[in-house]
Amino acid sequence: MTATLIPVPLPQQAYSVAISSSLTDIGSLLTNPEIQTTKLGQKMVVVSNPQIWKHYGQTVVDSLEKAGFEVTHCILPAGERYKTPKSVQKIYDHALAQRLERSSTLVALGGGVIGDMTGFAAATWLRGIAVVQIPTSLLAMVDAAIGGKTGVNHPQGKNLIGAFHQPRLVLVDPNTLATLPRREFRAGMAEVIKYGVIWDRELFEELESCDRIDQLRFLAPALLTKILTRSCQAKADVVSQDEKEGGLRAILNYGHTIGHAIESLTHYRTFKHGEAVALGMIAAGHIAVELGLWSTEDLDRQQQLILKAGLPTQLPDDFPSADVADLLLTDKKVKDGKVRFILPTKIGAVTITDQVPKAAIKKSLEPMLSGA
Amino acid sequence: MTATLIPVPLPQQAYSVAISSSLTDIGSLLTNPEIQTTKLGQKMVVVSNPQIWKHYGQTVVDSLEKAGFEVTHCILPAGERYKTPKSVQKIYDHALAQRLERSSTLVALGGGVIGDMTGFAAATWLRGIAVVQIPTSLLAMVDAAIGGKTGVNHPQGKNLIGAFHQPRLVLVDPNTLATLPRREFRAGMAEVIKYGVIWDRELFEELESCDRIDQLRFLAPALLTKILTRSCQAKADVVSQDEKEGGLRAILNYGHTIGHAIESLTHYRTFKHGEAVALGMIAAGHIAVELGLWSTEDLDRQQQLILKAGLPTQLPDDFPSADVADLLLTDKKVKDGKVRFILPTKIGAVTITDQVPKAAIKKSLEPMLSGA
Repeated sequence: MTATLIPVPLPQQAYSVAISSSLTDIGSLLTNPEIQTTKLGQKMVVVSNPQIWKHYGQTVVDSLEKAGFEVTHCILPAGERYKTPKSVQKIYDHALAQRLERSSTLVALGGGVIGDMTGFAAATWLRGIAVVQIPTSLLAMVDAAIGGKTGVNHPQGKNLIGAFHQPRLVLVDPNTLATLPRREFRAGMAEVIKYGVIWDRELFEELESCDRIDQLRFLAPALLTKILTRSCQAKADVVSQDEKEGGLRAILNYGHTIGHAIESLTHYRTFKHGEAVALGMIAAGHIAVELGLWSTEDLDRQQQLILKAGLPTQLPDDFPSADVADLLLTDKKVKDGKVRFILPTKIGAVTITDQVPKAAIKKSLEPMLSGA
Repeated sequence: MTATLIPVPLPQQAYSVAISSSLTDIGSLLTNPEIQTTKLGQKMVVVSNPQIWKHYGQTVVDSLEKAGFEVTHCILPAGERYKTPKSVQKIYDHALAQRLERSSTLVALGGGVIGDMTGFAAATWLRGIAVVQIPTSLLAMVDAAIGGKTGVNHPQGKNLIGAFHQPRLVLVDPNTLATLPRREFRAGMAEVIKYGVIWDRELFEELESCDRIDQLRFLAPALLTKILTRSCQAKADVVSQDEKEGGLRAILNYGHTIGHAIESLTHYRTFKHGEAVALGMIAAGHIAVELGLWSTEDLDRQQQLILKAGLPTQLPDDFPSADVADLLLTDKKVKDGKVRFILPTKIGAVTITDQVPKAAIKKSLEPMLSGA
């Protein structure tokens, strides 16, 4: 086993993100008493979707069984539209049928949808059982799987129903990206770029030095591992300083404020989450420049990186940009009617402000409208 | 305002149980910066059922509005059979319609069902918003409202879906017991007796010294307040030492292990929860005597107190007592297939053991079977 371990030192539950080029490590990672200081119970349920299960299910189950666990699986349909209380109910039903105990564990094997739902089921079954995250998408690896945010969608809004529930381990195997659709890879790259802008200048410059970052095959394994490690480290750093988004953690929402509005106003059909985040970062960057917080040079460097990742930089022709500011007020991050923005001040640092004029929000979208 | 404050000093969130003979205190308690060290947001939703709302709703709303909060209400049908994900969904829908923010608060006004559901909705809306508990049943006052256990029922088991979510304040107004049905009062008294047995010998002896404890009207206001205060103090003591039932908190399940089995095997139709707990305490008491842990004298004192509270001491004629031991294995407190029992060692102290022979469980039910 040659896993790189990134600690997430939360006060109530410390855990590790293990970067390893083999899924077969999962069994030994979960039985290593230095990594799992509180022993996990025997029963485990692997939750996955049909595609991921086909590729990686047996490998994970074999490794867990070899380590002595008693493993069953629960397969849910793939896709964001199944991230609902109803799917979570299926996990509950399986948990009941298998008589899961308080010491039992759910193992999420898949992308963000599987990870969020499995985490939420674990947070709420018997008032909280253990969960292990094995993310197989770039987005889930560098973002969703780390930090304990779990949840499902309400018909009228994403992630409105959820809980904080930290995993006992996150295993990131870069090889699982081989089966990730190209567009999903690019969408995940948006979050990697985000870490560069908000937290890690070196990561940003590493990405700048790459010829291409729009497809997995252009990234050498060592470079990919480095990018994953630095991104996971950035996320771990931030959440371990602010588990429940009381302060610092809000910076992870860079690009997400307007990104969410873009997703919502295009009915979640036009853009992947990461693509909307890329557009949101462009908008936030323009606001930062407009408010005199950021340089146009850095804004341009961000733009180039987003383009190099093959991410969109334009909104659809019929995009109702006038509605963005109003919609922002329904975002769950709104506090006492004020919208909080994360704005860059240089590459690798941001500031938080709720003093963005409505006009600046509108103006920030203009460079992305067709004809601009 | 003349509230007695009982602190619940949990590390992540300390809060108080306020015993006050006036519901109109709620507004000032929630705006007192010494009691609410983190300010609550403006929006509040009072969740209640039609009966309780009719009696106390306006008083609570007036007090909250006078204190500057913006209040709406959400009324759910009364009764355990509505303690479901569907009812919680109604709270979510209301929260969405009112655009609740992360700083908003749900106020549970009612018995255990309202408290558990409202707490669970607060635990899971926007990954956790504030909840205030105003219990109006004896059971909820001394037990359910304190300690952060929230949840709803799965068709195949009670409280299987839930979360730990501590309230920001618990307000206990003894006067609200005036509208509580007599049988509910008795059922709540079972938990009061429980605190006497497991934790507080003086409380036990206080109850012994009363002529009657089976109806509210036999308890003088000062005595009632004393009993409520000691019971809430017992619960606060235990949960503040063990928030998530890692150890000590398990003692609160005295009488509940077999009590839950009795509820389940009688399909939740024959006994109220508190009544089943009384029967469970009788059974646990017999097991403790059988194992040489407890004296027959103390067992008899417990029996007398249960009788004086007007609680049942007999199982139905057709009760399938042979099924109890098997059923216990499906209880959510089961760990690695072993059933954990809380057994008294004297009045005011218990021990925890998972070494109870199946035969002892069966024998413990015999004194409660007809003809015994």
